[in-house]
Amino acid sequence: MSGEKKQKLKARQARGFVDRNAGEIAATRAMVSVIQEVYERYGFDPVETPFVEYTDALGKFLPDQDRPNEGVFSFQDDDEQWLSLRYDLTAPLARYVAENFDALPKPYRSYRAGYVFRNEKPGPGRFRQFMQFDADTVGSASVAADAEICMMAADTMEKLGIPRGSYVVRVNNRKVLDGIMEAIGLAGDENAGRRLTVLRAIDKFDRLGLEGVRALLGAGRKDESGDFTKGAGLDDSQAQTILDYVAGQSGSNADTLARIRPLVSGSPAGSEGVEELARIAELVEKSGYGTDRILIDTSIVRGLEYYTGPVYEVELTFEVKDEQGRPVRFGSVAGGGRYDGLVARFRGEPVPATGFSIGVSRLLSALTALGRVDTAGVAGPVVVCVMDQARLADYQAMASELRQAGIRAEVYLGGSGMKAQLKYADRRKAPIAVIQGSDEAEKGEVQLKDLALGAEMAKAIEGNTEWREARVAQRQVPRAELVKVVKEMLG
Amino acid sequence: MSGEKKQKLKARQARGFVDRNAGEIAATRAMVSVIQEVYERYGFDPVETPFVEYTDALGKFLPDQDRPNEGVFSFQDDDEQWLSLRYDLTAPLARYVAENFDALPKPYRSYRAGYVFRNEKPGPGRFRQFMQFDADTVGSASVAADAEICMMAADTMEKLGIPRGSYVVRVNNRKVLDGIMEAIGLAGDENAGRRLTVLRAIDKFDRLGLEGVRALLGAGRKDESGDFTKGAGLDDSQAQTILDYVAGQSGSNADTLARIRPLVSGSPAGSEGVEELARIAELVEKSGYGTDRILIDTSIVRGLEYYTGPVYEVELTFEVKDEQGRPVRFGSVAGGGRYDGLVARFRGEPVPATGFSIGVSRLLSALTALGRVDTAGVAGPVVVCVMDQARLADYQAMASELRQAGIRAEVYLGGSGMKAQLKYADRRKAPIAVIQGSDEAEKGEVQLKDLALGAEMAKAIEGNTEWREARVAQRQVPRAELVKVVKEMLG
Repeated sequence: MSGEKKQKLKARQARGFVDRNAGEIAATRAMVSVIQEVYERYGFDPVETPFVEYTDALGKFLPDQDRPNEGVFSFQDDDEQWLSLRYDLTAPLARYVAENFDALPKPYRSYRAGYVFRNEKPGPGRFRQFMQFDADTVGSASVAADAEICMMAADTMEKLGIPRGSYVVRVNNRKVLDGIMEAIGLAGDENAGRRLTVLRAIDKFDRLGLEGVRALLGAGRKDESGDFTKGAGLDDSQAQTILDYVAGQSGSNADTLARIRPLVSGSPAGSEGVEELARIAELVEKSGYGTDRILIDTSIVRGLEYYTGPVYEVELTFEVKDEQGRPVRFGSVAGGGRYDGLVARFRGEPVPATGFSIGVSRLLSALTALGRVDTAGVAGPVVVCVMDQARLADYQAMASELRQAGIRAEVYLGGSGMKAQLKYADRRKAPIAVIQGSDEAEKGEVQLKDLALGAEMAKAIEGNTEWREARVAQRQVPRAELVKVVKEMLG
Repeated sequence: MSGEKKQKLKARQARGFVDRNAGEIAATRAMVSVIQEVYERYGFDPVETPFVEYTDALGKFLPDQDRPNEGVFSFQDDDEQWLSLRYDLTAPLARYVAENFDALPKPYRSYRAGYVFRNEKPGPGRFRQFMQFDADTVGSASVAADAEICMMAADTMEKLGIPRGSYVVRVNNRKVLDGIMEAIGLAGDENAGRRLTVLRAIDKFDRLGLEGVRALLGAGRKDESGDFTKGAGLDDSQAQTILDYVAGQSGSNADTLARIRPLVSGSPAGSEGVEELARIAELVEKSGYGTDRILIDTSIVRGLEYYTGPVYEVELTFEVKDEQGRPVRFGSVAGGGRYDGLVARFRGEPVPATGFSIGVSRLLSALTALGRVDTAGVAGPVVVCVMDQARLADYQAMASELRQAGIRAEVYLGGSGMKAQLKYADRRKAPIAVIQGSDEAEKGEVQLKDLALGAEMAKAIEGNTEWREARVAQRQVPRAELVKVVKEMLG
């Protein structure tokens, strides 16, 4: 055989992409199914779009031949049309709703979980394929739709086992942010770029604190690594207005509303935004959601350009250890907001919409940290050992009987001897090994090794000989009682 | 607003890709979960690979710049490496097993469901994205692994509600086919292309019959549309040997084995193949699977080049109507075989493997035809109508109470009046509409409209007026009894 050796191809997963093992799959499946249940309870229906869309429908410019992959993975089909892998679930939903507008009930509540793709440099915790779980309400201009999603987010966290007090849904409004910018003279299309720089600076409040954000609002900021980030170029007074808005967070929505109202008094959009926040606060409060669960927080902005009204974020407030072993808050696991312009691109008329997205792996990490998910995967099968290849059919019949009785079971199908088979059973986390050599076969019996108990006893008993002689974790029973006894042993 | 109208973007799904609605999603979810259960019972563990692999790992040549997309969707990342969307689940599994070889138990049984992508011209029933459900055993050279997958396939069909007699797992062996070709002088690398042409001709036996295949084995065949397919160029005697092998199917495995043994008597590979089939027949029979479930069938070849031993296919034998209304057999829904070379490409040593793939949408169509799946989607929610925007919080509290009690419920969040709301409830297939106008609110009551019953009665009662006056499907109850009565009504 070795004479046939050819040039070997290297087996390696593509950079930024990962395989998922049984434990992760089972845990994700369990988590996703809980989220589905909550969302369906709220009247949201599943809908799924394909992984591939025309590039223009995703709102990306057509890639040029030199840099076809700016942020998204793109390729041309045989009609020379540019296609892209979806980079989120919102843009494809906007296309779906626009394409099926007349057939859909409106408001249209829907949800979906799926992988999205980013053509970016992968890094620690940054992948090119990752899963999002989205819920959106299209066709409702009412902030009740935003409030509903915030309440649904809170319910989801609790249903997943995150205790009240360990999470908070923070709400803000882009209109207020726009009002503040108007107040400091940053209105108008010509200031769009600067407004975005300001928003991104505010977005870092949580991480950089007041002085860090002040630097980013002004000339700029040098980080620990020496990298310089250019600032928004605001003067001190402009920056102070922004900081007055962002900081001074209160646990009382009434206090927050009272604090920000005067800041936007000159801006109709800003005042409208404040009243929308007041309405959301009222709606969630009357439904019994206190500020321990849903809180107005003026430091929340969400990075995306397309938000047009309320924005919201789910933060997990319990602490985990960072790489240096220091306690840090777990942080954001989901976020979203109102995006009234996204469906409108296709319709040529305004279509109000709001929605949010859960980062599935991040939430799964959180649940794992809290011990709320089982990542052990499927329980190991009962392994029927093969003592005599000529009697394979007999062994298969044993496994088949066990399966008929609802027990996970398999026959060892490799070519190795007894020792390797028990090692295999161990690796498979098999609870029981079934053994029938010629002796047992003659007597019409089978030997059952309780591998779980055996492993425990092996720990307790000193010395290999002593253990071998103990054999307590082993029973010999009539072949006809195989299923019955295995059932008993599995408890 | 109309003054703001901009150039509209066309909303259209990419060609060959489809959206999936709630009904399809729910039905697929239910079906996939049954298959999972059967596979796990057999000791198979879930494992998932990413959607993207290095092109060379998929066994495709690097795309050249002029035709980058031959059959697969390919693109370059920022390292200029070629990446491709997976076109099946087998090639990525081979990469995964090779990359994690030492860590995996061997034999390694695994399963996965997922979308695969083909860069081909889409057509009726031919999509560029579709779902496969695969199970594979890697590291077992024993045909017991093939037999096991055939039995698992049979169990899966029955567990999905396809009655015994309505499906059959057909088994053949590529080694026998190779032996036949050797017998007619088509051995050797120089005949690889012709052998593939012969295999593809046999593969059409089911559709074209004996004379059609004879033509394809000889000079070629012109189909009804006038298109000519070049044949394998065999002479009459060579073709007859192939046809003797393919045709004459028997319901008895013993008869089939007796018929084909002499045809390959001169070929060691062919004889080995026949003995493997005999062994599979023995193993499945001893496990109680008769030829009504698993049958040796010499007309099965499976199109793929990489099969090296047993091949198998699940055929549904019940009839459905074709486009012309003629009854036809439903046909193949799954298939696979032994592919000992695929992992070997990475390892430089032989790694035996066998596996099979279910075409998920095709199987779902079959189950739909049999009435075995519910494609209605999620049941509609109770809809709480909004009679007064100022009292939205009260309506939300009603929906919230219903949800707490495990009832699917939502508040109408659009801007329209009563008539539109009832139309909306109808479109949402809501079983009940909850209505509380100012009259009911004053009395502390709510009105509950039984929409399901109402729709039935509307059918029975002639004339709109009569129906409106009947109002039997409507109850007014105290607000405090909302949840209790809704529960009763949902029964």
